[in-house]
Order: sequence, then structure tokens, then C-alpha cells
Amino acid sequence: RMDRALSPASPAGLSAYVVVSQLLGLMLLATTGAWLGRYRGGVAWHSLLQFNVHPLCMVLGMVFLQGDALLVYRVFRHEAKRSTKALHALLHGLALVIALVGIIAVFESHRTKGIPDMYSLHSWCGMAAFVLYLLQWLLGCGFFLLPGASFSLRSRYKPQHVFFGIALFALSIATCLLGITEMLLFNIRDSYSHFVPEGVLANTLGVLLLAFGLVVGYVLTRDDWKRPPLAEELALSMDFKTLTEGESPGGGS
Amino acid sequence: RMDRALSPASPAGLSAYVVVSQLLGLMLLATTGAWLGRYRGGVAWHSLLQFNVHPLCMVLGMVFLQGDALLVYRVFRHEAKRSTKALHALLHGLALVIALVGIIAVFESHRTKGIPDMYSLHSWCGMAAFVLYLLQWLLGCGFFLLPGASFSLRSRYKPQHVFFGIALFALSIATCLLGITEMLLFNIRDSYSHFVPEGVLANTLGVLLLAFGLVVGYVLTRDDWKRPPLAEELALSMDFKTLTEGESPGGGS
Repeated sequence: RMDRALSPASPAGLSAYVVVSQLLGLMLLATTGAWLGRYRGGVAWHSLLQFNVHPLCMVLGMVFLQGDALLVYRVFRHEAKRSTKALHALLHGLALVIALVGIIAVFESHRTKGIPDMYSLHSWCGMAAFVLYLLQWLLGCGFFLLPGASFSLRSRYKPQHVFFGIALFALSIATCLLGITEMLLFNIRDSYSHFVPEGVLANTLGVLLLAFGLVVGYVLTRDDWKRPPLAEELALSMDFKTLTEGESPGGGS
Repeated sequence: RMDRALSPASPAGLSAYVVVSQLLGLMLLATTGAWLGRYRGGVAWHSLLQFNVHPLCMVLGMVFLQGDALLVYRVFRHEAKRSTKALHALLHGLALVIALVGIIAVFESHRTKGIPDMYSLHSWCGMAAFVLYLLQWLLGCGFFLLPGASFSLRSRYKPQHVFFGIALFALSIATCLLGITEMLLFNIRDSYSHFVPEGVLANTLGVLLLAFGLVVGYVLTRDDWKRPPLAEELALSMDFKTLTEGESPGGGS
């Protein structure tokens, strides 16, 4: 088991799942673009089309980039932990910035059109997802990137970080589905039930979002696809294990 | 580790999380009832109120009972595996029957009112969730309750069963959120943005659904809260391990 974990090859199947996840990710960006471009007049900041910046940024930031940030430990499984960690934080940071632009777009668009903010379930879920995502990112940087946190503190926080990371990713996808439903019922309420192309396209976007979440979630939670510790990390953690009186480095108390 | 796993006490914290999950479950049933009773005219089968059977059954079956069925291995951690398994299958079966009643209610209600079926993202997600949930239940019974499947086949299927079980639970909750949004936009489209009580109550139901899913998901995925094998199961799996040429009984190939 150990010799296989330390070999440079990726486990069978993992690469195929990662490729499928990236194809799904590109398809959901293309589908979002097609919906906004073909049926919603396109995207522009200083105009009545400012609203359309919102779905584009949220799908790109809160779904595609967030999902890819979660995958880096599986994809770059034989790189140094520190570089992979930095990439993980960087992708999440980029996702946060893009999501912030998307949030500003919808608030400004509401102000222009005189629509109240934060009344819908979509807005409640979305604001919760964004604020908790930012908090999770700050905590992650504090615990895992800054040198202050002890090995034992990191080990105890890590399972929480992983669980809430996947939960926030799921919440982000659910919030997108709510946004799709809202947009359709506001824009094509009467024709939606006649299976007009815009409705079917937007529903398909919803299905793609779920499929992306499912594949990413599967890759993340499969036990035998977890990133194996490198030889030098194992040696290091053994040293720390001795120093911290036999605490397990794998997380969990 | 082994002596603790075999001791009859539950891990610290688990009971508190289970109690919170049940309180949230009761709160979400009460909130659904309050919404339908106070703002939607109540529930009745042979009437225009037949639609209201749908949300009630789906929240009860696809969320509360499905969630509790997932929890049985954590709650009844020192009962015989076979009884716990039977309860797991029974609760999921009950959830399926109640969900089926809820689905019949919405199809009949659509026919009465002349509304087309299966055009919305909610209906696509919901039908996928129900069909896959039924399939998962049939596969689960076939692999784990019927005597035919070998120990090694069960071990290989188990991680898939667990992953898709949690994914379907998440999809069920997301579908409920979509249903809440649809109902609000069909019924109180113009007043929703003025924070009328019905809108706030229904949004709160959405938040309760997410909270229930989060707590159940946390209990299910916490490594040190997993059901420990009983002494006699360990002995049995050792026998099988020898018989099946050293294959791991914990799942994963």
C-alpha cells in the first residue's frame, strides 16, 4: 500500500474523472454564455445588461473556480504540499474576487431598476454562501498558510475545513439552481411551461451544474484517491508525531 | 482505539448533534405545515388544495425520513448490524412511499388545473432525485439485504452506496429549495420583494432545510463517529478476509 502511495502514477480512473469534470466545467460556462448571449441580450457593465454579469461571475467563480480549487490536491498529487496549498488558496481567492464582482453587479442593477435587495431565498442562500466562503478562506489562510498554527492545531482543524469546503461548494451550486429558477420565472413565466428553447437551455445548465458538483464531489471523497503524503512529509510528520506526544497527523481527535 | 470503539458509550458530541438534527427536522415539518395551513389554505386530497400535499410529503419523505434513515448507523451504533440495516431500508422505503404520494398529488393537481408537467428545473431535479433514490434503494436491498452478494462485492459497492446516498440527500434538499422558490414566485410574485410574512416564513423553511442537511451531513461524514464493528462482526470479517484472500472489509479497492 505504502509503495503504491509513494509512486508517481495517479490511481486508475482519477485522471478520467478529472477530465470529465473539466469538460463539464467548460460546458457549463459555455451554456451560461449561450443563455445570456442568445436570450438575455449579452453582458455589459454600464447598462441595463449589468444584471447579466451576475450569473456569469457566480458560475465562473463560485462553481467552476471553487470546484477546481478543491481538486488541486487530487490533480497535483506529487507536487510539494506547499505549492499545491498556495494554488488552492490562490484559486479560491480568485473565485472570491470574481464572485464579489458578480454580487456588486446585482446590487447595482437592483438600484438602477428600483428592485429591493435580499428578499429572496436565492439571495439569502447566496449571501450566506459568499460570507461563509470568505470566512473559510480567511481561516484556511490563517491555519494552513501562516506559520503560526501548530501541527496539532492544523490536524484538528483540517477535517472541519474539508467538510465545510465541500458543504459550501454544494450550497453554491444549489444557489445557482435557485438563481436559474428565479430568472426563468421573472423573464419567461408564461412560456416556460411550453418548453421554449430558453427554458430547456437554462434547465440544462442546472443539470450541468449538478453533474459538475457530483463528479467533483466523487473525486474529492473517494478514499483511495486522496493525496498520498510525500516521503519527506512522512518523515516530517513522524518527527512532529513524536514531539506532540503521539497525536495523529491525519486529523480527527 | 479498538477498546474505545467497542465500548458501549457513544462518542462525545454525537448525541448532541443528533438531538439538534431531530429538533431541526421537527421544526422544518412544523414550518411546512404552518406555511401551507396559514397561507395556502391547508391540505386536502380531493380538492384544489391537492397540490399542497406535494410539499408536505416531499419534506417529510425526501428530507426528514431520508435524513433519519441515513443516521441510523450512527444512532444505533451498538445494535446488531442486521437490525440496523433493516431499519435503514425500512425508513428509506417509507420515505419512498410518502414521496410517491407527493408526486401523484402534483401530477393530479396539474391535470385538474391544466398545467403541463415536467417543464421546470425543479421537476427535472425532483424526478431525477426520486428515480435515482428508488434505484439506490433497490440496489441497496439487492446487495446488502438479500443473501446473494458476496462479502467482497458488498465491500466494493459500499463506498459507492454511501457517496450516492449523501449526494441524493443533498439533491433532495436542493430540489425542495427550488420548489419553495417556484411556489413563492407563482403565488406572491409581487409582494415577495416587500418581505411579506409568507415570503419570510418560506425562506426560513429553506434555511431550516439547509441546516438539517448540514447537521446530518456532518454527523455522517465525521470519521470518528462512524459505527464501530461489534466484536462478533470483527471476528466474522476476519474469517471472511481469510476466505477471500486478504481483501479489505472496509471497502475501497
